[in-house]
Amino acid sequence: MEIKLNLPQSAYSVHIGELPNLAFETKVAIITNNKIAGLWLGDVLQKLRAKSVVIVTLKDGEEYKNMASIEEILNSLFNEKFDRKSLLIALGGGVISDMTGFAAAIYQRGINFINIPTTLLAQVDASVGGKTGVNNAFGKNLIGAFWQPKAVYCDTKFLSTLPKREISAGIAEAIKMAVMFDKGFFEFFENHDLKAQSELEFVIKKCVEIKADVVSKDEKEAGIRAVLNYGHTFAHVIENETKYSHFLHGEAVGIGMNMANSLALKLGLIDKNEQESVKNVLIKFEIPTSYKIPNLERFYEAFFLDKKSAANKIKFILPNKIGNFIMRDDIEKRVIMDVLREFSESEK
Amino acid sequence: MEIKLNLPQSAYSVHIGELPNLAFETKVAIITNNKIAGLWLGDVLQKLRAKSVVIVTLKDGEEYKNMASIEEILNSLFNEKFDRKSLLIALGGGVISDMTGFAAAIYQRGINFINIPTTLLAQVDASVGGKTGVNNAFGKNLIGAFWQPKAVYCDTKFLSTLPKREISAGIAEAIKMAVMFDKGFFEFFENHDLKAQSELEFVIKKCVEIKADVVSKDEKEAGIRAVLNYGHTFAHVIENETKYSHFLHGEAVGIGMNMANSLALKLGLIDKNEQESVKNVLIKFEIPTSYKIPNLERFYEAFFLDKKSAANKIKFILPNKIGNFIMRDDIEKRVIMDVLREFSESEK
Repeated sequence: MEIKLNLPQSAYSVHIGELPNLAFETKVAIITNNKIAGLWLGDVLQKLRAKSVVIVTLKDGEEYKNMASIEEILNSLFNEKFDRKSLLIALGGGVISDMTGFAAAIYQRGINFINIPTTLLAQVDASVGGKTGVNNAFGKNLIGAFWQPKAVYCDTKFLSTLPKREISAGIAEAIKMAVMFDKGFFEFFENHDLKAQSELEFVIKKCVEIKADVVSKDEKEAGIRAVLNYGHTFAHVIENETKYSHFLHGEAVGIGMNMANSLALKLGLIDKNEQESVKNVLIKFEIPTSYKIPNLERFYEAFFLDKKSAANKIKFILPNKIGNFIMRDDIEKRVIMDVLREFSESEK
Repeated sequence: MEIKLNLPQSAYSVHIGELPNLAFETKVAIITNNKIAGLWLGDVLQKLRAKSVVIVTLKDGEEYKNMASIEEILNSLFNEKFDRKSLLIALGGGVISDMTGFAAAIYQRGINFINIPTTLLAQVDASVGGKTGVNNAFGKNLIGAFWQPKAVYCDTKFLSTLPKREISAGIAEAIKMAVMFDKGFFEFFENHDLKAQSELEFVIKKCVEIKADVVSKDEKEAGIRAVLNYGHTFAHVIENETKYSHFLHGEAVGIGMNMANSLALKLGLIDKNEQESVKNVLIKFEIPTSYKIPNLERFYEAFFLDKKSAANKIKFILPNKIGNFIMRDDIEKRVIMDVLREFSESEK
């Protein structure tokens, strides 16, 4: 199954299904982490032919998504005399694809890369769209570039070794797409348990199609692409407060969606039933929905460093009934604080 | 005087003449170095109105053109809570504009910047074209991005405090343009001493026009833009061998052009008279033409790390008569070594 993305500066395809044989006439570097390498590098190498192949193995974890890792990748490429025609392959989750893409974007002012996402989260979300970057002391994804892959291969075989918690985190991002764009797709989550491979492939396909449509319309996030950040305004602060070590990204997004929905309920954008049905689907797939905010003012202030907070306004992406969205940057601090307070007082 | 550049993804103007008043509704950071700041920052600040203005002062010199300086810039922006609508202004030479552009390219995946070049070299060359980046242990400009400024302002007032040696280095890049593209422009250098401001403005205008034309045709250096690298294949190795501390960039390019011309002579692309006339113009403007190569094999090997050496071929940009160029990537090592040998044996 192939989904085509047409962007102003580049066109590429997302392939869903068994990873095909890949042949390149250039030097290739596979960027991966030590965990994935042990599980899947052998399989991938068997399918790969190239002029030469170098493996760069990073440590596993969001805490290594930083400039030091980028320099490690770049230095490996310089050591192997990679040139502007050489190719990078990201083999891993969102952390690996974000870093591989960013390294590709700045190595000799830009070389090609392809994505082989090995987590459900990366297959439904992180591998498509060309957002690349790293975290720093000030927050998440604050340094980076827009740089599109030449191709993406989503093979559900890689998900067979994924911890259950990471499957849930991936489903959280998929539910995000559904709540924003497609009520029928949301009901699919209510009515299926996603145990079958065909169900997972359907979810990946739907998400890639939705994201491809959004990204094609708005590659650089000037407008509609921001909708994909539903739940993320809260999630980024939560991840930053917990130093990226307590929640998986998708888990933080689950909590963030639940927080956003509390706000949407307060603003009359959704009703109590709709709020409950999203929360119930999150709980059904074992996605966390609560985080006890330790300090309300600090949490609120942290919104303002977010990339989406241009000119000191906080931009919230909220559901406007399920399957539809609205952007609001005019919400009074008092209302936001009310929502935060709910999450500081109880395990909501 | 205004020269318009039309690139696929961006259009902007280069203004030659007195710096106008500049007003912005966003936060602005001026990125400069400690030397330029003392000389010109007051003048520029008087002309600038913005929501707020931050100054980031880096140390002066090519040796500080590295990732550490980029992180210093980025951290200053994060500390001041710059957002995606904020603006950077590069006030300085090529080092400052390359680094400011790169910081702008990767801050929150890309923000705007404008260029106020204060050296002749930057006015004729480095400020136009969108090449940004830094050096590392492996060579020059090896990490970077293509990122276009929103506007460039070339005011020859800034050149009044420039050391004579830096004027010569700037003229070297201008002569490069002439030898590659315009015999009449080359003769201008033979017949004028560039002491008058109007002569300098003419040279800047001609260079920006030539470069604008080339960059418009080939923003990402797929083909013809490589012509601007005449002399640079040699110059980059020289600069790397001398650790960027002995020659100014334009001086290394002067030597590199003379080396390239020796190669062009050997290949019959120019005759002895043409070779001599370029060399004489370089000498007239006190641009160095010789470098005693300490180790021939090492110098030759260093070509292969250059970004322009795709697939292990060295690409030379050579004059094909004055005012015309040719690209060659098929020159035998023996011939190249003959040229290098000339420069190892004598102060040619």
